[in-house]
Amino acid sequence: MEIPRLKPRGETASSARVDFSEMTPELLPFLGQAAYIQLEVFENLSRAVSTAPTLTAKEGLSAAAGIALAKHHVLIAEIRRRDAKPDEVMAPFRSAIDRYRAATTGSDWYELLLSSYLTAGMLDDFFIRLADGLPGDSGPWVAELLGRDAGTDVLVSELQAGIAADSRLGSRLAMWGRRLVGDTLLIARSALHGTGPETPVESRIEPVFTELVAAHTRRMDLLGLTA
Amino acid sequence: MEIPRLKPRGETASSARVDFSEMTPELLPFLGQAAYIQLEVFENLSRAVSTAPTLTAKEGLSAAAGIALAKHHVLIAEIRRRDAKPDEVMAPFRSAIDRYRAATTGSDWYELLLSSYLTAGMLDDFFIRLADGLPGDSGPWVAELLGRDAGTDVLVSELQAGIAADSRLGSRLAMWGRRLVGDTLLIARSALHGTGPETPVESRIEPVFTELVAAHTRRMDLLGLTA
Repeated sequence: MEIPRLKPRGETASSARVDFSEMTPELLPFLGQAAYIQLEVFENLSRAVSTAPTLTAKEGLSAAAGIALAKHHVLIAEIRRRDAKPDEVMAPFRSAIDRYRAATTGSDWYELLLSSYLTAGMLDDFFIRLADGLPGDSGPWVAELLGRDAGTDVLVSELQAGIAADSRLGSRLAMWGRRLVGDTLLIARSALHGTGPETPVESRIEPVFTELVAAHTRRMDLLGLTA
Repeated sequence: MEIPRLKPRGETASSARVDFSEMTPELLPFLGQAAYIQLEVFENLSRAVSTAPTLTAKEGLSAAAGIALAKHHVLIAEIRRRDAKPDEVMAPFRSAIDRYRAATTGSDWYELLLSSYLTAGMLDDFFIRLADGLPGDSGPWVAELLGRDAGTDVLVSELQAGIAADSRLGSRLAMWGRRLVGDTLLIARSALHGTGPETPVESRIEPVFTELVAAHTRRMDLLGLTA
């Protein structure tokens, strides 16, 4: 069972999509933001490990945390390989992403699981899409890295089991899932600063955001939640 | 800069040491407890990542967290390879180690760092020593795994910098370091249940604990703390 992803690059694309791929993000800031987001995903997942009610859940979550951390370290290594300092490259994104994490951690274990599942899914989709415009041969490489199986089956199965056992949890999580979308799109939008000489216009972003929300809706459906 | 370890196996050993190595821990419980301890180390380190004041510290700590998690996963894989279920094998150790973790987390980031450094060091030393008596060829393999560089240089450097900048922190951490010893030795002792037909006697354990405390004192010295 995989996170439903956006269509892979190369499939028939809308004209809006082509516009979006013409934006050329600068490589280092892109890597820095993507790296810090993976670190944030890792932090959420490792928090979920610590508060997991069963050892089975702990096991699955720790594997997912390890995958996010490995992605982070690959991105960090790439920043170093380009003679830049990871902390300096990530610094500009730190406060916004820290605030985002605080706002999306949730009030209990299930909200944390849902955040980890939905926000990592949306942000991976977004950065994979944005990678289209990276200079040189970095795009396909980064897209492949971010698109690797994130080990999130455990999130889906734990959420499904929790929701099946308690219908009120389902209603609460449906609301929580809807709340996450806005904050996540703001983080995604912030990645578009400095993506080229012309400021990206709403008409270009909008179709991509529509696709992100559609993928989000499919994830909610998979959990039996109304988006 | 490495954690000062106990002398490697094979060096001139005291008679007490030979006695200790004659204890034969059962393999699966040993692997289960060692695996759960590595998960606990990971949880402490990932908590330290989340609360780190600088991105440089975050980077180093996340690498150390990744190493602990990788050791955990290797042990888990070995449990599975022996057709046992990791959650069942770890379960008997869960509540004691969870309580231990709660008691040793500390009240701020520096106490957490010191715990991560000192308790992981003592427990790795202890389990490496106990591995001597494992049946079959598991001993050397496990000892090598647990003895691998834990990436804890960052703990030492952050602690040294913090202590250098604030002498009151040094006094507080010295007390905290002393408190950690007792709880850690209790966890170590609990690993000796079921290590053979005869209950291990105090006279056998005592010399090993003396060595553990000596290594602990060297770690405290390295930080400029009075043990």
